[in-house]
Amino acid sequence: MRFDPSTLRYTADGLLPAIAQDARSGEVLMLAWMNAEAVARTLESGRVTYWSRSRQAFWVKGETSGHVQTLVEMRLDCDRDALLLLVEQEGPACHTNRRSCFFTAVRGGDEVVLSEPMV
Amino acid sequence: MRFDPSTLRYTADGLLPAIAQDARSGEVLMLAWMNAEAVARTLESGRVTYWSRSRQAFWVKGETSGHVQTLVEMRLDCDRDALLLLVEQEGPACHTNRRSCFFTAVRGGDEVVLSEPMV
Repeated sequence: MRFDPSTLRYTADGLLPAIAQDARSGEVLMLAWMNAEAVARTLESGRVTYWSRSRQAFWVKGETSGHVQTLVEMRLDCDRDALLLLVEQEGPACHTNRRSCFFTAVRGGDEVVLSEPMV
Repeated sequence: MRFDPSTLRYTADGLLPAIAQDARSGEVLMLAWMNAEAVARTLESGRVTYWSRSRQAFWVKGETSGHVQTLVEMRLDCDRDALLLLVEQEGPACHTNRRSCFFTAVRGGDEVVLSEPMV
């Protein structure tokens, strides 16, 4: 079946969550949002392109930082309302300069920082 | 710092996306939604508990199917608006009886099914 981004199920604001996972290591790097046009642009260009909710604009990951995400494979879930992006990540994915945005764990009721910014 | 579920950043409907990842294999199993009370219940019980948007009710994963998710570790992202759950998954995570909900890939513009239901 041909894939059509308009057949995905978006929330009321026209977005769905997209998980970026390191295609090699399996590390979950970040979660961001896409609209149908961002999905189409990502597939066409191979450069992962989100929709920035704060800036209300397309966000070609790494366009300013150089920390680009190259799409290896896009997957959709059974409900067609979430995406998993297998990517090659250049440098850190997180704006704090860490490889992954998920660097804080909850352990024994406390927040524990698991990694430091890359140098 | 003590962790307080109310300090997470929820969308207008009081929810945030939670990614479940197999703690052992690294496979991303599913994405579902939590409100603050679901986060608290998951931490207290160690049984992953989502908020079902379709049923508008708490959803203790596996309560009816037996395919429970036991929490190994909860992580939050830099923006405090998404969760990564490292879990031990009993059997399939997906209601289609597949291990992961992300069993459909987009390859060459087509949807390709990557795995079959478990028997």
